[in-house]
Amino acid sequence: MEVDTESSYNQDINPELFVELMRLFFDRGWMVGSSGGMAAATADKIYYSPSSVQKERLTPDELFVFGTHEMKLQSRPRCPEIKESACVPIFNLLLNEDENTTCIIHTHSKYANLLTQLLAPKTIFEITDQEMIKGILNRETLKAYSNQHRLQVPIIENATQEYMLLPQIKEVLTKYPNTSAVLVRNHGLFVWGPTWQKTKIMLECYEYLIELACDMIKHGIPLIKAD
Amino acid sequence: MEVDTESSYNQDINPELFVELMRLFFDRGWMVGSSGGMAAATADKIYYSPSSVQKERLTPDELFVFGTHEMKLQSRPRCPEIKESACVPIFNLLLNEDENTTCIIHTHSKYANLLTQLLAPKTIFEITDQEMIKGILNRETLKAYSNQHRLQVPIIENATQEYMLLPQIKEVLTKYPNTSAVLVRNHGLFVWGPTWQKTKIMLECYEYLIELACDMIKHGIPLIKAD
Amino acid sequence: MEVDTESSYNQDINPELFVELMRLFFDRGWMVGSSGGMAAATADKIYYSPSSVQKERLTPDELFVFGTHEMKLQSRPRCPEIKESACVPIFNLLLNEDENTTCIIHTHSKYANLLTQLLAPKTIFEITDQEMIKGILNRETLKAYSNQHRLQVPIIENATQEYMLLPQIKEVLTKYPNTSAVLVRNHGLFVWGPTWQKTKIMLECYEYLIELACDMIKHGIPLIKAD
Amino acid sequence: MEVDTESSYNQDINPELFVELMRLFFDRGWMVGSSGGMAAATADKIYYSPSSVQKERLTPDELFVFGTHEMKLQSRPRCPEIKESACVPIFNLLLNEDENTTCIIHTHSKYANLLTQLLAPKTIFEITDQEMIKGILNRETLKAYSNQHRLQVPIIENATQEYMLLPQIKEVLTKYPNTSAVLVRNHGLFVWGPTWQKTKIMLECYEYLIELACDMIKHGIPLIKAD
Repeated sequence: MEVDTESSYNQDINPELFVELMRLFFDRGWMVGSSGGMAAATADKIYYSPSSVQKERLTPDELFVFGTHEMKLQSRPRCPEIKESACVPIFNLLLNEDENTTCIIHTHSKYANLLTQLLAPKTIFEITDQEMIKGILNRETLKAYSNQHRLQVPIIENATQEYMLLPQIKEVLTKYPNTSAVLVRNHGLFVWGPTWQKTKIMLECYEYLIELACDMIKHGIPLIKAD
Repeated sequence: MEVDTESSYNQDINPELFVELMRLFFDRGWMVGSSGGMAAATADKIYYSPSSVQKERLTPDELFVFGTHEMKLQSRPRCPEIKESACVPIFNLLLNEDENTTCIIHTHSKYANLLTQLLAPKTIFEITDQEMIKGILNRETLKAYSNQHRLQVPIIENATQEYMLLPQIKEVLTKYPNTSAVLVRNHGLFVWGPTWQKTKIMLECYEYLIELACDMIKHGIPLIKAD
Repeated sequence: MEVDTESSYNQDINPELFVELMRLFFDRGWMVGSSGGMAAATADKIYYSPSSVQKERLTPDELFVFGTHEMKLQSRPRCPEIKESACVPIFNLLLNEDENTTCIIHTHSKYANLLTQLLAPKTIFEITDQEMIKGILNRETLKAYSNQHRLQVPIIENATQEYMLLPQIKEVLTKYPNTSAVLVRNHGLFVWGPTWQKTKIMLECYEYLIELACDMIKHGIPLIKAD
Repeated sequence: MEVDTESSYNQDINPELFVELMRLFFDRGWMVGSSGGMAAATADKIYYSPSSVQKERLTPDELFVFGTHEMKLQSRPRCPEIKESACVPIFNLLLNEDENTTCIIHTHSKYANLLTQLLAPKTIFEITDQEMIKGILNRETLKAYSNQHRLQVPIIENATQEYMLLPQIKEVLTKYPNTSAVLVRNHGLFVWGPTWQKTKIMLECYEYLIELACDMIKHGIPLIKAD
């Protein structure tokens, strides 16, 4: 297949593109205050964002690059104080859990946080009859859902450290084998998928539905229609 | 007439401009998550956006270009997996329905979606006494409305596929021959007009009125004043 | 006085700067759908925005430039269909009313519109004890107000054409000789001042206070504290 | 330690970076209408923003630069009418109060203002169990808080001039020795920290929590969970 070199459709992730996406997510309000992060893999590399730094000011050489053939770190930021994202254990769990997953994006959007509070103590966000559900993939089949599908996003409770979320994430992956996202109460959202393109598209669809759901709740509109 | 080449006033649509508009609409939140799309015609071409791709990252050579003299596709994205917008049947219906229509823009704005829910089960959005109504054209006369006009935007019910909206759209075109837009419940907005410039201006006026109407409803302000 | 050529502090308005400001105001949501406009004068020229065109796409040669010595139009857009702003009679009234006024900005912000509805049928917006009031000038003294000043912005009723607002604007200038702004119900805001810099700063302060007032009303917080 | 010259992680503040941050804060809505300001120190200089000018249009030579070895102004804007920020007495108090403080940012965000009104007459904003609290430093220990920490931000009453806030700020620094921020009622926020990077990150975390708190209050969600 001849690849269109100017198109982003089949473009592999690379350091320049990675930091460009960080700027975009910062501008959307999803990675402010050094929050959030991403892991994205190619055939032989995994790129991870660093921890505790301004996401919109990342330079391509500030990423952690892990070689998956030699199984070791190929490069890291020159500044030794910069650490890899605290989410790396979660990113690796999701990458290893499913061979199709190559990208995970973690955001701290205000609406994701607010929705988990509005739904508390529920441990699931459910919505249906929304066009944007068509942008979400079933993790097992990798097929897009119908807009009539009852979308389910599990909500887990926050912990003091990100790695402490691992048991809960493992549990929801078993309980909801089709989900491509999980919400963390008072914290944010994790979304994963088979390419960075589809993961970013799903992220935008999830954030749209989350923000819409907050508005619907404010207006007393049910998220699930009575039959 | 001497045309000012630097002005956008009489500028024909072209691939670079088309993708620039997609980025603008993405930034407004109207085409996130690969949603939305546009068709825009010149004297001998119709440009269509592709389906299921990031609208803000489109390159000029990723458009579908249909030659209206030779009645066939002149070019398409090199990547064979990229398909034309699922809205093409709707775009073509609107282009054929009215010889003056050369541009259709379809957006997934959160407020358009929310308004259709706030007004449910009504099948029309009506508002009057608003200055921005002057930015909307009567489809039949192509004249701008007065700000005292009672603007009517029909609301149709969503379907699982975009082409399944065709019968409802045909029906509202008959029932509301003057409308330049239709809302789709839980989905978004279609706007059309005689040039890309006027269609974009109308889109911004409709989105402004829709967002304002959501706020008015939240505050209990009627959209139509009692006489 | 040595003028810092790189500084915007004393920079005269010019066509490039004018259209740059239009883009900024569009991005803020104040001039969408071809709405809004500006007039700004130098020692021998008045620049006016054109009507019914996309404000963020204006080119420097699409302005109307009036020579105040020769009292005639020095240049206008080459495209004959482009007309001057429908607000020109209002802009001229304000320029002539007060020798200190050199700039008027007219916006269609959603919040200005909403506030006039929330306050209806009142014909004035009043707020006090707000830091941003310090950014507003008394039109007669050209001195900034204290943050404890009770700021008054008259609200007039909308009309079908902009020039029909003239009698009401004349009336409020007499009734409120100190005001640097007027709200138009269901329409927008006019702000004027002695330089484009101070007018833009005032515009941003007014829009901030207007948006804040909408939120205060939503939460039931009075705009004026009881003594 | 080898410093990564492309990284912002260890980059000292400089005039170009200072004005770039002003543009960013303006775009966020935190420094509109000439409001807000910043002071940031290097080993031998303190940079201060000017007063009453458009913050997003500042040029690098419009800053006030104070030499801390020679204890005098090294440079200032060429235009004599431009004055230093009215916050300089507050900035200096905070710089002198604590040897670790090198940067102070003052914003006029709408949400900071609104929150002080929603909480009135309380003189403190408290929130807990929020992930973004981890982005805030304890001023005394310079360690980040746990997300379970009960974050406390003192609220002081506004005054007619900024220097009149000094006694109240001194008082809250004594009463809340760990705080890295103070809210001013109907006015805005001051945030300070050991580097411009950490101060900016804290600012974004505080603004996130403030905006979230406004939404939580709107929905009747308590900011502090009952035990």
